Amino acid sequence: MKKYILPKGFLASGIHCGIKRKRKDLSLLFSTVPCKIAALFTNNVVKAAPVILGQKQLKRAKYIRGVVVNSGNANCMTGKRGIRDAERTALLVGKALGVSKNSILVSSTGVIGRYMPMAPLVKGVKDLVAGLSRETLIDAADGIRTTDRFRKISSRVFSIGSKEITITGIAKGAGMIRPDMATMLCYILTDANISRTALKKALVASSNDSFNSITVDGDMSTNDTVMLLANGEAGNILIGENGKYFDRFRKNLNGLTLDLAKMIVRDGEGATKFVEVHVKGARTASGAKKVAESIGNSLLVKCACLGGDPNWGRIASSAGASGVKFDVDRIKVKLDDILFFNKGKAVKVDAIKKAAVFKGKSVRIEVDLNAGEKEAKVYSCDISKKYIAFNAHYTT
Amino acid sequence: MKKYILPKGFLASGIHCGIKRKRKDLSLLFSTVPCKIAALFTNNVVKAAPVILGQKQLKRAKYIRGVVVNSGNANCMTGKRGIRDAERTALLVGKALGVSKNSILVSSTGVIGRYMPMAPLVKGVKDLVAGLSRETLIDAADGIRTTDRFRKISSRVFSIGSKEITITGIAKGAGMIRPDMATMLCYILTDANISRTALKKALVASSNDSFNSITVDGDMSTNDTVMLLANGEAGNILIGENGKYFDRFRKNLNGLTLDLAKMIVRDGEGATKFVEVHVKGARTASGAKKVAESIGNSLLVKCACLGGDPNWGRIASSAGASGVKFDVDRIKVKLDDILFFNKGKAVKVDAIKKAAVFKGKSVRIEVDLNAGEKEAKVYSCDISKKYIAFNAHYTT
Repeated sequence: MKKYILPKGFLASGIHCGIKRKRKDLSLLFSTVPCKIAALFTNNVVKAAPVILGQKQLKRAKYIRGVVVNSGNANCMTGKRGIRDAERTALLVGKALGVSKNSILVSSTGVIGRYMPMAPLVKGVKDLVAGLSRETLIDAADGIRTTDRFRKISSRVFSIGSKEITITGIAKGAGMIRPDMATMLCYILTDANISRTALKKALVASSNDSFNSITVDGDMSTNDTVMLLANGEAGNILIGENGKYFDRFRKNLNGLTLDLAKMIVRDGEGATKFVEVHVKGARTASGAKKVAESIGNSLLVKCACLGGDPNWGRIASSAGASGVKFDVDRIKVKLDDILFFNKGKAVKVDAIKKAAVFKGKSVRIEVDLNAGEKEAKVYSCDISKKYIAFNAHYTT
Repeated sequence: MKKYILPKGFLASGIHCGIKRKRKDLSLLFSTVPCKIAALFTNNVVKAAPVILGQKQLKRAKYIRGVVVNSGNANCMTGKRGIRDAERTALLVGKALGVSKNSILVSSTGVIGRYMPMAPLVKGVKDLVAGLSRETLIDAADGIRTTDRFRKISSRVFSIGSKEITITGIAKGAGMIRPDMATMLCYILTDANISRTALKKALVASSNDSFNSITVDGDMSTNDTVMLLANGEAGNILIGENGKYFDRFRKNLNGLTLDLAKMIVRDGEGATKFVEVHVKGARTASGAKKVAESIGNSLLVKCACLGGDPNWGRIASSAGASGVKFDVDRIKVKLDDILFFNKGKAVKVDAIKKAAVFKGKSVRIEVDLNAGEKEAKVYSCDISKKYIAFNAHYTT
């Protein structure tokens, strides 16, 4: 079980209401006082109903009070009825909590194209609200899982002046993850007193280095959502969008989002290995990331990782397929910190050392383009027959 | 065995010289008279030595005489020595044929990052040239195979005025295929008398609708090459870049390249099903193709095809992930010609009809964006556990 501390003023709940057959399928995160919020949603043109609703709500609402999340049904491609179902969910939960429906956001994950089974959800709201407590974040983390093998929670505690600040996040991932956060949900709660601009700035920056730097299968979902709720209950001096307090907040948020992002990759459907792709020496940061993504997304590279095959040729070829210009005769390719290609030539690697490469649970791919100072990391996983078996017979 | 007719004035040969252990690994296509040529090469930043050399040769040479192709070694990431090896191959073959080294192009396919084993190649040139005949195109088609399960040959015969024109092509594909022709080689020979501009125009157009519309695993190789050689031996009136003769030539070339492209997809590593993705009703042709590619490349869609799961939600989600704007409430999704989603709603499909969808050897995905008049087709295949097993333990 992951250790975590719920930030001051937040309550959580997670129950089984009956959208899924057995497991928990409905979660609620609630703040006893109004929260500021920063949120990022999927870039997919096909957006689920709760995403459409949420984007609308956040245009008007200055403060929110909570988020209700169900698993088992994505409420996506469900037309107007889907929007009405999401609105009704916000209304019911808001009513039960005694707050406005506009202050309750909704998220969904699961099968696309089926109407939300509203009966179990409506019936479950009472228990969901009754279950709110400071001790049940684990249940909330479980209620958002779909094919996740383990729950994903991470916390950070630090000080601003004399005040203790907590940031805690829960996430779900598994299949369909890639840059732009495909079918992943993440809710981060903090009691920090922080400006709205600072909140957004911190979330965007840390998501870029974490959720937008992971890839499982190159697909992008219709429901992705990352939210950061701040209720100010820590009572610290307001954190602005610059300065050492902001830096401290951001550093802690970065660590937390990177924790969660890595958990998501480790839990990739059918994944057996964690793959870190580190691209150095690029002329631009975006170029470094493009090359790293091209390597991290390559099916052939994933297969090589699975097979424990230090196939640096495939890796260089994937780097070249990114479209980013570099001189292949100047690049270096290291696998698990052993140099395989340098100055236009394959490096003779000791057979015993070579045999150990890509054999562990975590593998490292490093490509130095030797063209500049910029770098990027992308976190990926291998692909196994389990992924195929799983997705061939699972209706998302 | 595929039927084919070698165009007038061309000879072919294919032998085992010893780059690979047992199977044929060296092929030669030769014209008894000088040829005009149009060629397309990989867009990968990492280009194999013969690609670099070929691009240089084609800047100067107005006519060429032949192409020598080896399988078993890609001669890629082999630095200056790789270039020298490719040059030496052209020189040796040219010498044996009594033509200039600049009129002999070189192609390679196989493992990246190992120096070309020149000894067997040098030794093999004599037999290769001695084997040239009008009856041995099959051997040449075999000599360029790597993981291909079957050889790929296609022919077209038609008339221009009183003259009979032949176009015949051989190709190799299998793994690593996607738009931009990743590790595929294709050599097309014709005895047509055609202008250089017309030759290039026809090749670009037909490649866009064939080789650049197929996808196996989203990877792009370092060695891709498509060449079209025309020696004019049919003696027809010159085909210019417009008019009915050009249209006839292009139509036949289109048919031939589409034949070869579909063979490549059907032979995708570990593929069990052929997948045709047809996107209609797009505002722009490039938008239609983007959406079709996004669906054709989606691992989840490939898995759904493998599993015979008519998962239209995944297909719509992949369409939305393409970045092309459309209104999801206006789209239609048909699978194997049965309507599954229309006017913002899932369509109730008869259970018996539904059970048959995606169960055949060929599956059809049709998405009508209902936003314009443009359309595109992309040809793909499913992904099976064999792909994973194969690529986990095969050093490309």
